[in-house]
Amino acid sequence: MNSRKNTNAQPCPVARSLDLIGDRWTLLVVRDAFDGIRRFSDFQRNLGVARNILSERLRRLVDAGVLATQPASDSSAYQEYVLTEQGKALFPVVVALRQWGERHLFAEHEAHSELVEKRTGKPLGFMAPQAMDGREVSADETEVRKLS
Amino acid sequence: MNSRKNTNAQPCPVARSLDLIGDRWTLLVVRDAFDGIRRFSDFQRNLGVARNILSERLRRLVDAGVLATQPASDSSAYQEYVLTEQGKALFPVVVALRQWGERHLFAEHEAHSELVEKRTGKPLGFMAPQAMDGREVSADETEVRKLS
Repeated sequence: MNSRKNTNAQPCPVARSLDLIGDRWTLLVVRDAFDGIRRFSDFQRNLGVARNILSERLRRLVDAGVLATQPASDSSAYQEYVLTEQGKALFPVVVALRQWGERHLFAEHEAHSELVEKRTGKPLGFMAPQAMDGREVSADETEVRKLS
Repeated sequence: MNSRKNTNAQPCPVARSLDLIGDRWTLLVVRDAFDGIRRFSDFQRNLGVARNILSERLRRLVDAGVLATQPASDSSAYQEYVLTEQGKALFPVVVALRQWGERHLFAEHEAHSELVEKRTGKPLGFMAPQAMDGREVSADETEVRKLS
């Protein structure tokens, strides 16, 4: 699975990521895949998305090497969509979206689903950008060094 | 600026975030705002986006409380778009998108822009989801506890 066929001239890694996954349905499919959803019909039911849109997003994610198809685990005729290693590496993106939503888009006592560590049952810590030595850094303390 | 007017029935914080910012142009505007871009014409030139699309995305970001408008810093007639505190809180999302792109969408020796700490000039560390006690956790070690 060669993800580089989508490579374009963008020297900014943020832009190149968004060219592949910068789309609401695409990222909801990735979220569902992290939740263990594998079949077309299950993605469709959970997302309430039109079949043609879902088909197109799944195909793009497979082409991009984020999802791979495999025969259904129950030996039925269905195929399943599972995250590749490259897809699993999107976990920080999904966690960052979740934590921003939790902090900024819910009222103080409004309930929401929670991402917890299985072993302890406790929510994850807040994920913040860090310097190489582990100090948290804010956006104001950073800058983008562009290609000259 | 009340971000909650966009609140919908989504109990999943990932979905609620994506309802606001799950769009390629929207996230590129946010990235540019982190890079210090403030004016409509500068966003437009940097992104190469159609004016009507840019207008609509900026308006939505202001409505959502991610950007705020203010008079131009040079006292000209222009207005500027700046990140609010809620907007600055998207820094982990942008960093996660950048780090995924750096690791998965560039060839080994392919150059890309770099996010560095101003003080040290060094790239940030890799940002990984962590348990409350700071241990890194993978997606497989977590689960989403849905509302019952």
